[in-house]
Amino acid sequence: MPSHKGYPYLITKSLDPENQESPIHFLPQQYIPSYYFFRRNHFSYPVLGPQSYTLPITGEVINPYTFTYNELFCLDRKTLTVVLECAGNKRSKFDPRVYGEQWEEGAISQGQWQGVSLSTLLSYTGLSKQAKEVVFEGWDVGEKTGTGEVVSYQRSLSLAKALHPDTIIAYAYNGKTIPYKHGFPFRLIVPEWYAMASVKWLKNITVIDHSFEGPFQTDDYVYYPNEGEMKPFPVTTINVNSTIQYPLNYTIIKNGVHRVHGIAWTGKGEITNVQISFDEGNTWQEALIETDPTHRYTWCKWSIDWRVQQEGEYTIQSRAIDSKGRLQPQEPHWNKKGYGYNAVAKIHVKVE
Amino acid sequence: MPSHKGYPYLITKSLDPENQESPIHFLPQQYIPSYYFFRRNHFSYPVLGPQSYTLPITGEVINPYTFTYNELFCLDRKTLTVVLECAGNKRSKFDPRVYGEQWEEGAISQGQWQGVSLSTLLSYTGLSKQAKEVVFEGWDVGEKTGTGEVVSYQRSLSLAKALHPDTIIAYAYNGKTIPYKHGFPFRLIVPEWYAMASVKWLKNITVIDHSFEGPFQTDDYVYYPNEGEMKPFPVTTINVNSTIQYPLNYTIIKNGVHRVHGIAWTGKGEITNVQISFDEGNTWQEALIETDPTHRYTWCKWSIDWRVQQEGEYTIQSRAIDSKGRLQPQEPHWNKKGYGYNAVAKIHVKVE
Repeated sequence: MPSHKGYPYLITKSLDPENQESPIHFLPQQYIPSYYFFRRNHFSYPVLGPQSYTLPITGEVINPYTFTYNELFCLDRKTLTVVLECAGNKRSKFDPRVYGEQWEEGAISQGQWQGVSLSTLLSYTGLSKQAKEVVFEGWDVGEKTGTGEVVSYQRSLSLAKALHPDTIIAYAYNGKTIPYKHGFPFRLIVPEWYAMASVKWLKNITVIDHSFEGPFQTDDYVYYPNEGEMKPFPVTTINVNSTIQYPLNYTIIKNGVHRVHGIAWTGKGEITNVQISFDEGNTWQEALIETDPTHRYTWCKWSIDWRVQQEGEYTIQSRAIDSKGRLQPQEPHWNKKGYGYNAVAKIHVKVE
Repeated sequence: MPSHKGYPYLITKSLDPENQESPIHFLPQQYIPSYYFFRRNHFSYPVLGPQSYTLPITGEVINPYTFTYNELFCLDRKTLTVVLECAGNKRSKFDPRVYGEQWEEGAISQGQWQGVSLSTLLSYTGLSKQAKEVVFEGWDVGEKTGTGEVVSYQRSLSLAKALHPDTIIAYAYNGKTIPYKHGFPFRLIVPEWYAMASVKWLKNITVIDHSFEGPFQTDDYVYYPNEGEMKPFPVTTINVNSTIQYPLNYTIIKNGVHRVHGIAWTGKGEITNVQISFDEGNTWQEALIETDPTHRYTWCKWSIDWRVQQEGEYTIQSRAIDSKGRLQPQEPHWNKKGYGYNAVAKIHVKVE
């Protein structure tokens, strides 16, 4: 007999380059299957040749070395469950609205990445005294909107971040080879940072003695607040945030008991509280949080039972707090390129 | 080699009942493949038994008769290309916002339906003198939000509309059996009307001597304008309308020449003009319309070349005019349940 339900799909924002978000409201999984993982690209997918199976590390190192796919497999494995969130997630919610990919709430996914600590690789090559940053180049290349220049996708990390044992060169996702669209064969995974740092289709790693100034580091992925507020500053750590998965915004629901639920996540420490308001923010109740303590870098699921008898229109809000004392702000931090939206999540429902 | 592009998917609004819209901005086809056809359900999908292969016509007829699947195939075939648009298409654009499925622009699809004129079937059964309306019941059943009553999906047509030769009982879509999710084995197709009239999974047809008052006729699918404006009135004919498929709202595009394009459609007569404004509505230019004159009930594609040299932010608007002199209004006709949105289409782009 045919299924009485439907299945969700990725939500298309553009096809070339491909940008599609996860149908996050319809995914109960903790580990998002790779076909539901959000896709975010600056360029067309790269053409991969035999060289893509090797990973050269050069520059300010003592022994430059090109690792092969097989060599990486033989080194100590590190497995991490990590939430990856596009810095532009929820961009469409800024008011005044901001131009760019109009991400709603699904430019976020998580799952289990497996690979080798970058620090392990760098312990083989060594670092020269001048080493300051590590630059990661992907195989993806194209014309950059705005300048029209043909560039590859490149990002850097400070030495400290690069040497963090949880900064890994991943070769597997959810126990399988990384899918082509998500960075096969090697993808840098940088927990706690927005996903622009987790460079896909790694082509090479170069240690440099200065500050990297590529366009995806100094032009894009920079917060440009309103004039006079603050100076521009780079996008790095994920902001404390939450999303309401159920109910959906502007839907009609029956009176009775509803288990309102969603996810909450942060790039610093862990989520300690998720608070929910059903009365325009006058009172807040603690939601029940399901955390897996072994997973430092994951979202947590939260839920709360809402008993609603009275018909009418209601606003439901959620705000997360992390162990570093960060709380979702009531209003978003507007910035010209629309990064890091993390205002209190708010939806409207009508009870009939 | 893997594809360098992505593929679009349906856009999920709910899974049970299943409501998903077509990725209309990414579909160049004139005949939408069935897997991209929007899905709109009030209930879970029905369980179909052997009886679903027969179609009884009873009530105010002279010879009640139950047609079999094979008999329908043997009668004169009628093939029509028809646009089907959900009455709630674009509901999410109303301001103040309206509760219900938050359709954006994709609750619309079209393709080739094949079947038998209902008038052919009624010529076999004959009509009694008391015959006034024809009621169509689907196999889909469930609890109706609001009342909690368990009902089946039923709609009626006036005798005049039911006897129109282009009101058909379809058994094929785009040359194949109608997919289960779109009404297999029999679907009523009512050209020119919003798609709530095109009842899926037809269970029976009953001719009655009075006005039908089922909940999907007198509660849902009724325009309830603001108090004092007008009396409530039923949703029937598709309003003149247009959608801009390219560019997408709030995207950044390069300066140069862009072929802005979209679709336009109407439930009365045909589209005669599509006018585009790039300057906040001060001036309007005629778009080029591609119509297929044999297809009375289809959308037409339109396009216009836009040469833009100056960087900056622009508004693009489209408005369609039909042969009955109907023009898309600048402001939508707000109504409580959010039907029939057809204000001038408007998007914003930034040129870099």
